[in-house]
Amino acid sequence: MSQLIYNNLNIINGSITAPKGFYATGEHIGIKRKRKDLTLIKSDIPANAAGTFTQNSVKAPCVVRNQSLLANKISGIVINSGVANACTGEKGIRNNEIMAQTYAECLNVPEESILTASTGVIGNQLPMENLTAGIKTLVKSLDNTPESAKKAAKGILTTDTFRKEIAVEISIGETTITIGGIAKGSGMIHPNMATMLAFITTDADISRELLQKALSESVNDSYNMISVDGDTSTNDMVIVLANGKSGNTPIAEENEDYETFKNALNYVNLNLAKQIIKDAEGITKFMEVTVKGAASREDARKIAKSIVTSNLVKTALFGADANWGRIVCAAGYSGANFNPNHASIDFSSPAGNIAPFVNGEPIAFDEDRAFKVLKEKEIKILLTLKDGSEEATAWGSDLSYEYVKINGEYRT
Amino acid sequence: MSQLIYNNLNIINGSITAPKGFYATGEHIGIKRKRKDLTLIKSDIPANAAGTFTQNSVKAPCVVRNQSLLANKISGIVINSGVANACTGEKGIRNNEIMAQTYAECLNVPEESILTASTGVIGNQLPMENLTAGIKTLVKSLDNTPESAKKAAKGILTTDTFRKEIAVEISIGETTITIGGIAKGSGMIHPNMATMLAFITTDADISRELLQKALSESVNDSYNMISVDGDTSTNDMVIVLANGKSGNTPIAEENEDYETFKNALNYVNLNLAKQIIKDAEGITKFMEVTVKGAASREDARKIAKSIVTSNLVKTALFGADANWGRIVCAAGYSGANFNPNHASIDFSSPAGNIAPFVNGEPIAFDEDRAFKVLKEKEIKILLTLKDGSEEATAWGSDLSYEYVKINGEYRT
Repeated sequence: MSQLIYNNLNIINGSITAPKGFYATGEHIGIKRKRKDLTLIKSDIPANAAGTFTQNSVKAPCVVRNQSLLANKISGIVINSGVANACTGEKGIRNNEIMAQTYAECLNVPEESILTASTGVIGNQLPMENLTAGIKTLVKSLDNTPESAKKAAKGILTTDTFRKEIAVEISIGETTITIGGIAKGSGMIHPNMATMLAFITTDADISRELLQKALSESVNDSYNMISVDGDTSTNDMVIVLANGKSGNTPIAEENEDYETFKNALNYVNLNLAKQIIKDAEGITKFMEVTVKGAASREDARKIAKSIVTSNLVKTALFGADANWGRIVCAAGYSGANFNPNHASIDFSSPAGNIAPFVNGEPIAFDEDRAFKVLKEKEIKILLTLKDGSEEATAWGSDLSYEYVKINGEYRT
Repeated sequence: MSQLIYNNLNIINGSITAPKGFYATGEHIGIKRKRKDLTLIKSDIPANAAGTFTQNSVKAPCVVRNQSLLANKISGIVINSGVANACTGEKGIRNNEIMAQTYAECLNVPEESILTASTGVIGNQLPMENLTAGIKTLVKSLDNTPESAKKAAKGILTTDTFRKEIAVEISIGETTITIGGIAKGSGMIHPNMATMLAFITTDADISRELLQKALSESVNDSYNMISVDGDTSTNDMVIVLANGKSGNTPIAEENEDYETFKNALNYVNLNLAKQIIKDAEGITKFMEVTVKGAASREDARKIAKSIVTSNLVKTALFGADANWGRIVCAAGYSGANFNPNHASIDFSSPAGNIAPFVNGEPIAFDEDRAFKVLKEKEIKILLTLKDGSEEATAWGSDLSYEYVKINGEYRT
C-alpha cells in the first residue's frame, strides 16, 4: 500500500487494551494440552461492531451467529482455540450459544451483545464443562494492561509460533484515538487454507456503517492479499469494536476524519497480515509482489495474489532462482486480463535488482547477480503491465519442500 | 468413471505406433543434458486432428499455432522437451514455425499439416541449430514398432520418472480399431501447475467434429480431474490424430459406434491421467475422490477437484490421518453449491472402511481402525451429498513436507 501516507501515526506498546475502555485476558483452561486456549475481550460500554467472515460455504456456528448480531451494540468477544466447533451438527450450534450465554451472564450483559470465535480441529465437540468453568474463572482476570492483552493474544493461537499484536495512535481533530489488534494465522502450507482470526479494538467514535465500510475495504488490501478469496476456512473472521470513548467528534460521513481513521485501521490490518506471513511454517524469505499498470484494480489484485500463492514461485524463491517464467505463468492462470506481450518483471532486494523480462521479451541476465539479489531475506517482485494504471500488492512466504518416499511396502 | 463399461476392450502392447499407419521415434539431440529431448510422430496418410489446450492466458507459440491448424489434415507432430519456448517474444514464434517447417520438409508435406509442442523451462530460446539438425537426422529412424513408440514416449518427458504409454483395441462393427497414447506430467508439487502433454493416435475413421467432441468430453473426465481448470501452464495440450486406416464404417454421427470409440478414448485418457498422478514427486499414496448426490455434474466436479488438490487433505493422507474436517472445508471453498448438513464421508481401502461424518454430524470412530484403513497405498474417499443425483471422480497424490529453516543470517 505504498500509496498510503501514515501522517502522525504513532506505533505504541500493547494491543487490544490500549484503546480506552477495553479489557482482555487469556488462559489455559484444558481444551489444548498446555498452551493458552481461551481469550476474553470486553468493552466497558457497548461498542459498534463490524466484521468480515469466511466465504467458505461451510461455516462454523460462531460465524453464522456473529453475522446475525453485528447490528447490535457489542460488549464482548469470547474466543477459544484448539477446537474449531465446525461440522459439529446441532450440538455444536447449541454449544456455541452456551459459550456466548456464559460470558454474557458473567458480564451481566445481553447474550446478543456477545460475539464468539473458535479455531482448531474441525469436527470435534467443545469440552463444555471446561469451557463454561473456564469462562467463569477467567472473567475475574479481565484487565486493561498490556500484559493482559498479551495473554489474550496468546489464547487465540493454534500452530502459530509467536503472538501477533499491534497498537497505534492517531489524531482526529484535537483528539487522540487508539486502535489495537491481535491476530492468529497458521503454520500451515497455505496461510489461506487454515483459520485466520483478527480482533481489533478502538476508542474512536464512528458509525457502525462507516466502521463496516472501512473494515471491508481494509481487509481487501491486507488479509485478503495474503489469502485467496474463496479458499478460506470454516471459521475465518475479522471483528472490529469501536466504543467511542476517545471522545472524538463522531465520524458519521466520509470526511477527512474518516480517511484518517481508515488509514490507521489499514495500517493495523496490514501490520497483522504481514506478521501472519512472517509466521508461515518454514519461511526463509518474505516476498512482496506488486502489479502495476493493470486495467483494473481487481485484475491487479488477482494477478498479485496468484503469484504470491503459486507453489512454483514460492519454491523458486526458496532456491534463490530467478525463474521469472513461473511468475508469468501464475499471472496467466490468475483469471485476470492482461497482455503478456507488454509485461516486464523486476526482482529487487537490498542487494540490488534484476530485470529478466522486459516488454514481453526475455533479457539475458547475470546469474551470479541474480543469485545475489535473490538470496536476501526480503524480496520484492514487480510486474509492470501496460494495460492501464491500476495497481495492487500482495505478500507471501517462500516454501521449502523435501519429499520423503516411504521405502518398500506398507505392512498390512 | 464407474459408470463406464469397457465392453470388449483389450489392452495391448505399445502405444502410439500400435494403430495402423503411425510412426514415431525419440532421441537426445542436445537440448537437455543427457535425456531424450526430441520426439517425432507421423501418420502415413493425413489424419483428422482434435485438441484441447491450456486455458492460461499466456500461451506458448506452439499452442497458438496448433489451435489455428486443427481444421487441416495433419501428417505429423514434432515435440521437444527441455525448453518450453514460452515467453520468448517474436523470436520464439519464428523458432516454433521453423521447427514445423523443418519437419514438414523432411516428410515432404505442407507446413500447415505439422503440429508442434514444447515443454520445459519458460523464457529460454530453443537451440535452433541442434533442433533443425536433430529433426533432419531423427526423421530417418521413424518406425512403427513398440520400441520406437517407447523412444517417443521418453522424448517428451521432463521431470517425470517413468514414461507413460497405453494402447487398446476395440471392435467397431466387424472392424478392430486401435487407440494408443503417450503422455508426460511432472514431478512438481501440483500436477496442475506444470506442463501436461498427451498425444493420442488412432486408426479409427471418425469425422473431425466428432473426434473433437469425444476428446473434449473425455478430457473433462480425465486430465481435468487431476488438474484444475485455469491453473494450467503455458504449454498444456492433448492432441489426437485419427487416420481412418482401420477401415471401420466411418463414424459421422453420435451412434453406437461413436459411443464405443468415445469409451475407448476415455479409457486411454483416464489411464494416462492416472499414470501422471502415480509419477507425482514424493507420492506415497494414490487417492480417488468420488462425490455423489450432487445437484449438478459441474458441482460434483468442482468439489472432487477441490478436495483432491487441497494441500491440507494431501498432507493428512500422507499422515494416515482421518482428518475429514479438511475434506468438508475443501468442499466448502470449491465454489460449488451443496448442503453440508446432509453430507457424509467414507474412507475406504483394501483394509476396510470408516465413516466419520454422517448426515452432517460427526460420528465417533476407532482411531486404530482408521489408521489401518488409511495406511494403505490406495485410498478412496467418498463424499455423499443429498442435493441431487450427479457424481464425479477426481484423482490425486498425497503430499509429504519437511520444512527446513535456514539457520541464522544470510551472508551478504
